[in-house]
Amino acid sequence: MKREKLKVGIVGLGRLGKEYAKNLMFKINNADLIAACSLVDEELRFAKEVLGVPYLFSSYTEMLQLPELEAIYVVSSTDQHADHMIMALESGKHVFSEKPLALDTEECYRVKSVVDDNPELTAVVGFVRRYDQSYLYAKRKVDAGDIGEPFMVRSQTVDKDSIADFQMNYVLKSGGIFHDFNVHDIDLARWFLNAEFTSVHAIGGAFKHKGFGDLGDADNVMTTCTFDNGSMAVINASRTGAHGHDTYTEVVGTEGTLRIGRPSYKNRVEIYDQYGARKECVATFWERFDEAFLLMAKDFIDCILDGRKPELSINDAIKATEVANAFTQSFRASKIVHL
Amino acid sequence: MKREKLKVGIVGLGRLGKEYAKNLMFKINNADLIAACSLVDEELRFAKEVLGVPYLFSSYTEMLQLPELEAIYVVSSTDQHADHMIMALESGKHVFSEKPLALDTEECYRVKSVVDDNPELTAVVGFVRRYDQSYLYAKRKVDAGDIGEPFMVRSQTVDKDSIADFQMNYVLKSGGIFHDFNVHDIDLARWFLNAEFTSVHAIGGAFKHKGFGDLGDADNVMTTCTFDNGSMAVINASRTGAHGHDTYTEVVGTEGTLRIGRPSYKNRVEIYDQYGARKECVATFWERFDEAFLLMAKDFIDCILDGRKPELSINDAIKATEVANAFTQSFRASKIVHL
Amino acid sequence: MKREKLKVGIVGLGRLGKEYAKNLMFKINNADLIAACSLVDEELRFAKEVLGVPYLFSSYTEMLQLPELEAIYVVSSTDQHADHMIMALESGKHVFSEKPLALDTEECYRVKSVVDDNPELTAVVGFVRRYDQSYLYAKRKVDAGDIGEPFMVRSQTVDKDSIADFQMNYVLKSGGIFHDFNVHDIDLARWFLNAEFTSVHAIGGAFKHKGFGDLGDADNVMTTCTFDNGSMAVINASRTGAHGHDTYTEVVGTEGTLRIGRPSYKNRVEIYDQYGARKECVATFWERFDEAFLLMAKDFIDCILDGRKPELSINDAIKATEVANAFTQSFRASKIVHL
Amino acid sequence: MKREKLKVGIVGLGRLGKEYAKNLMFKINNADLIAACSLVDEELRFAKEVLGVPYLFSSYTEMLQLPELEAIYVVSSTDQHADHMIMALESGKHVFSEKPLALDTEECYRVKSVVDDNPELTAVVGFVRRYDQSYLYAKRKVDAGDIGEPFMVRSQTVDKDSIADFQMNYVLKSGGIFHDFNVHDIDLARWFLNAEFTSVHAIGGAFKHKGFGDLGDADNVMTTCTFDNGSMAVINASRTGAHGHDTYTEVVGTEGTLRIGRPSYKNRVEIYDQYGARKECVATFWERFDEAFLLMAKDFIDCILDGRKPELSINDAIKATEVANAFTQSFRASKIVHL
Repeated sequence: MKREKLKVGIVGLGRLGKEYAKNLMFKINNADLIAACSLVDEELRFAKEVLGVPYLFSSYTEMLQLPELEAIYVVSSTDQHADHMIMALESGKHVFSEKPLALDTEECYRVKSVVDDNPELTAVVGFVRRYDQSYLYAKRKVDAGDIGEPFMVRSQTVDKDSIADFQMNYVLKSGGIFHDFNVHDIDLARWFLNAEFTSVHAIGGAFKHKGFGDLGDADNVMTTCTFDNGSMAVINASRTGAHGHDTYTEVVGTEGTLRIGRPSYKNRVEIYDQYGARKECVATFWERFDEAFLLMAKDFIDCILDGRKPELSINDAIKATEVANAFTQSFRASKIVHL
Repeated sequence: MKREKLKVGIVGLGRLGKEYAKNLMFKINNADLIAACSLVDEELRFAKEVLGVPYLFSSYTEMLQLPELEAIYVVSSTDQHADHMIMALESGKHVFSEKPLALDTEECYRVKSVVDDNPELTAVVGFVRRYDQSYLYAKRKVDAGDIGEPFMVRSQTVDKDSIADFQMNYVLKSGGIFHDFNVHDIDLARWFLNAEFTSVHAIGGAFKHKGFGDLGDADNVMTTCTFDNGSMAVINASRTGAHGHDTYTEVVGTEGTLRIGRPSYKNRVEIYDQYGARKECVATFWERFDEAFLLMAKDFIDCILDGRKPELSINDAIKATEVANAFTQSFRASKIVHL
Repeated sequence: MKREKLKVGIVGLGRLGKEYAKNLMFKINNADLIAACSLVDEELRFAKEVLGVPYLFSSYTEMLQLPELEAIYVVSSTDQHADHMIMALESGKHVFSEKPLALDTEECYRVKSVVDDNPELTAVVGFVRRYDQSYLYAKRKVDAGDIGEPFMVRSQTVDKDSIADFQMNYVLKSGGIFHDFNVHDIDLARWFLNAEFTSVHAIGGAFKHKGFGDLGDADNVMTTCTFDNGSMAVINASRTGAHGHDTYTEVVGTEGTLRIGRPSYKNRVEIYDQYGARKECVATFWERFDEAFLLMAKDFIDCILDGRKPELSINDAIKATEVANAFTQSFRASKIVHL
Repeated sequence: MKREKLKVGIVGLGRLGKEYAKNLMFKINNADLIAACSLVDEELRFAKEVLGVPYLFSSYTEMLQLPELEAIYVVSSTDQHADHMIMALESGKHVFSEKPLALDTEECYRVKSVVDDNPELTAVVGFVRRYDQSYLYAKRKVDAGDIGEPFMVRSQTVDKDSIADFQMNYVLKSGGIFHDFNVHDIDLARWFLNAEFTSVHAIGGAFKHKGFGDLGDADNVMTTCTFDNGSMAVINASRTGAHGHDTYTEVVGTEGTLRIGRPSYKNRVEIYDQYGARKECVATFWERFDEAFLLMAKDFIDCILDGRKPELSINDAIKATEVANAFTQSFRASKIVHL
C-alpha cells in the first residue's frame, strides 16, 4: 500500500551525493526530496535543473530550520559527517550519513552521546555492503549454519588504478587507505564472524605510486586480525587494481566456504576473443553497488515510516573507526596493536 | 527533472500482472496506477489492499471508459492480448502488452491494422530480454563490430522443471513450447543478426513428461534456422532444467563470440562445499529478468511522455508469432519449413 | 609388473605422426618402436636422428616384411588409412589407425571384411576423445545415471582460425569440414546417447573464408540429428574460432546436464588485467588432447599384450564415416537425410 | 634420441613412495629402478610383485653398497630425509629427497656441508609445485613482466578434511602445519617475488579439530610476511577444506594479477543439477600434482644424464625450513619474528 511520503533533505551533492539525490527523487516512491544544501554553485544548479528540488540552501543551518523536513542525508566530506549528524539530530531530524562516521574516536563518541539523547530519532551510518543482495544472501547462509561455524574472513577492497597526482592530497582528508577502503571490510568481518576485533597487524607499501609513501600512506596493504571468539581475518586494500574495482569477501567455516564477488564481473556477458575466455569487470564501487545504495537509502526511510530500528547501529560505525585507527597505527609502527 | 505522471491502468493481475502492478505503483515514479481490471476477486482484492489502486473493474470495457486513463498494460491471458490491445487503441489509449501478441498470424494483422490507424498512439509488445543490461551490452558490442560480422546465434530458454499434471492443459492455451518459450529467442536472433528467418527445422520430444507428447507438444525441442543474409541459428527450449531457469544466448562472429547468461547464476556468491565449487542458479524467469521487466515497463511510459518511438515495433511481435508458428509446423510435420 | 615390449612400426611421420612416434619411443614403456616408414626424407631423418628408430623404410610393403614387427600405427594421409590397415592385417600385424577410417562407406566395408577375416588381430581406429579423462569421467557419470536418462547432446569442434590460402586444397583431401571435424562429435553422440543416428539436417556457410564455399565446403556448420531411441543432437564445426581450439560437448539428461570442456582453458592460470578476468584457451587439438593421445596409443598396446578387446570396434569407425557422409549430403542438398 | 638409462634406487615405499616407484618403473624411460629399500614387508612385496624391482633391501646401508646404483630417491619419513641424503652422497650417489629437507636448521646445514663437499653429485629437495605446468606458465609470465612488478603473493595449501584421531600423532613427526603444508607456499613466494623473507607473523587456531591445539599445533593458520625488496605475502594453511584439496596462489603486480589453481577443479567437466552450476574439486595433492611429480622425478634424472644443474638448490630447501620455523615460532609466541 502506498504510504505518506517522508520529506527529506540532502547535504553534499558531489559525485556520490548526486547519486543519492537521484535515487531519492526518481527511484524511492515514499520519499520526497524537498531540500538540498551545498556550497558549490554547480551542485545547487544540478539540484534545481536536473532534479527539480524546490528548496535550495547554501547554509546547512538554514536548511535545518525548514520545519517540514523530517530527515537528512549527509553526503558531505568525511570531516563534516559527525558535525552534520549532530546538528540534524539536535534539530529533531532523523539522519543518515555516508561512511565513515569520523576519523577519530572522540568525535565518534560525541555523535553517540547525541544519538543516545534522542532515542526517538533514527541515526544510521551506511555500510552499503550489508545491503548488497549477494552479501545478504551469504549472511543468511552463514547464520543458517550452512558452512558450519565461521572462523575466518578474507576480505578486500580494491579500486581500479586511476590515480592522478592531484588525488594524493585528498588522501589526507579521507583518512588514508585503511579508513577510506577497509572500514567496509572491518564491518563485514564483525558481521560475518559475530565477534569483536582483539588485535591487528598491518603491513604494506607504496608499490606503484610512491607519492603515497611520502604522505605516510600506502597503495597496497594487508592486515591480519584476531577476534574475541578466537576467529581470524585478513583484510586487504589496494589502489592499483588493473582489472577494475574488486570488492571480494570470503567466509570460511568448519563445513564450507562462501566467496562473494569473485570475479567482480560487470554483467552476464562472457567474451571469447584473442584474449581468451573473459569477463569484463566493474570499473567503480558505484557500478558494483548501485543497487545496494538504493536499497540502503530506501531502508532508512522505511525504518522511519514503519517505526522499525535499522540493523546498523551507531555502535557499528564507532567500531569501524576504532579498528581502522588500529590498522593505521599498526602499519605506521610496524607492530601488533591490541584493542 | 520530475515530470507529470502518466495515468495508467492494468488488465490481468495473475502472477506476472501483480509484478507489473507493483512496479507501476512502487518503482516507477512517473506513472500513476489508477485503475485495475480482473475477473478474479482475489486479484482485485490484491489491487485494493496491497497496492491501493483507486479504481477497480471487473469489466475491461468499463475501465476503458475512465476518461483520465492514458495508457493500458495488458497482462491478461495470451488468447486475449490481441483483443485487449485493439480495444485499448480504439478507446484512444496507448497500450503495452505482454508477449506474445497472438498465436496466429491473422490475429496479428488485425492488431497491426488498428495500430496503423492510430499512429499517434504507442503500441508495444514486450520482449523483455531486449531491456536486460547484459543483452543490451552484448548488442552494443555486436553493433560496434567487436566480434566482426555476426553469423550465428545459439539461444535457449530453459525452465526449471516444476511441471505438475494440471499444467499440461495450460500448454494448449499458451500455444505450446515454441510460442511460450522461443518467441524470445526468435526475437533475439533477428535483433543480433539483423536479418529475417528464411527456413526452420524443428525436432524434439517429450523426454521426461510424456503427457506433453500426447498433447502434440514437447518438453525439449531444438530448431535450426537460416536467415536472409546467409546467417544461421539454433534455438532450444526445455521444460526440464534441473539446475534452474537457464536463459542463454551466444552470438558468434568472424572475430569473436559473446555469450550472455551462462551460467544463469543467482548472485555473486560462490559456494565451496562437499558438492565442489558451485554457484546456485536462478529459479525463475522473473528472478533472472526482474530488473529488465521494470526497465521495460518504465520505457513504455518514458516513450509516451517524451514523444519518442519505442525500439520495438508491432512488426517485431508479428514476426515472432510467424516464426514460432513455423517452428511448430516444422516440428509437427518433421520437415523443413520455408518462410 | 614390467612386461615384454611389443615391437611396433609407424607409417606417416607428419605433424601428428611425429607426436605418435615420440610417445611410442619415450613415454610408453611396453612398446619398442623399431621401424618407421615415410616417403619424405625429412621425416625419416627425424626418425633416425631425434628418435633413434633402428629400421627405416620408404616402402610400406617392405616395412611389413620385417618379421619381428607385431603392430603398426597408421598415421598416413586420410586417403591411405584403409589400404594401410588392410595391408597390415594381411601381413598378420595388429593395426591402429588415426581417424577417419575412410571417406566413403565402401572402403570402410572393405576394411571390415579383412578385420572379420582376422579375428586374432586387433584393429582400431582412434577416436581420441574417448580416452580424455574429462570425457571418460562424464561417460561414467552418465552411465551411472547421475543425470537421469540422457536425451540430448550438443557437441562442437572449433579450430582456432589460422587458415591460409594454401590450406584450401587440403580440405579436399581430408573430406571437408564434416569428416575432418565432426567425426569426433558423431562418435561422442553415439557413445553418450547409446543410440544410432536416424536422420540429419546440416546447414552452414563460408562466413569468413569465402574460398571454402567455392570448393563446396564451409567454415561453419551445424547439424541437427535424431536417433533410434528418440533422442537428439546438434553438432557444430567451425574453422574460425577467435579464442582457440574449442572442443565442447554437453550431455543433457532428465535430471541434470554435464558440460565437458567449456571454456577450453589452457591451464589453471587466471589473468586479471585490463581485459578483465580471463583464462587463455588452448591453441590446438594437440594441446587439448595430448594426454589422451598418449593414453590411446598405450591402450592399443595394452589390449594386445593383455589379450583384451579394445572398446572401440571397427564398427564405430564405419558409423562415423557413414554419418559424416550423411551430414555432407544434407548440407549440399539442403534437405533432411535419413539413415 | 633414446639415451642410456640411469640406475636408481628408492628408500621408502609408503603412499607417496609407491607413486614415485611406479613413475620410475613405468613412465620414465631413461630410468631403471633396480633397487628398493623398506623396513615394511608389505612395501617390499609391492616392489617385488607389482613393480618387479630386482634388488630389495631392508637395510639402507646395504642398498647403498650396490655398486651399479647411480642415484637414490629418498621418500622415507621426514625425520630421516637429512640422514638418508647424507648417506647417499657419502656413498657417491646422486640424491633426490622429498620435501622438507629437515625440521631444524642445524640438520639442514649438516646436509649442506656434505653437498658442498661433493660438487660432482646432484642433490635436490623436491618442491613439486615448481614443476606444475600452471605454476611454470605463471612464473614465465611474471618474469616476462606481464603483470608489471610483482609485489604481493597470496598463497595457500588446504587439504580436504579427512582427519582421524590417529593422525594427530603424525603431526608431531611431520613438524606441524607450517612445515607440512606451508613449505611449498614459502618456496613459491621466494620464487615469484625473487626475494628473501625478512619478518613473519602467524596467527591461527584449532577451529574444527581441537586436538591439534592440545598438541601445540593448529588446523587453520595464516601468516603475513615481508621481504627484503619491500614486497609482502600472506600464506594460509588449512586441514579442514570441505570441497577438496585446494592449493592456490595469487601473484599481484603493478599491472595485473595472476591466480593459479582457483578453483581446484578436478577436470573439465561442469555439472548442472539441483546443486547449481558446479565443478568437482580434486581430493588430494596427488590428484592435483601427479603430472608435476612425474616431471620432477624425470627432471632429476635428465639433469644427471645431461650434466645440467637443477633449478632447485639445497639453499632453497634450507630457506624453506628456516622460514617455516619462523612461522611456527611466531604462531607459538604470538609475535612478529624477524629473520
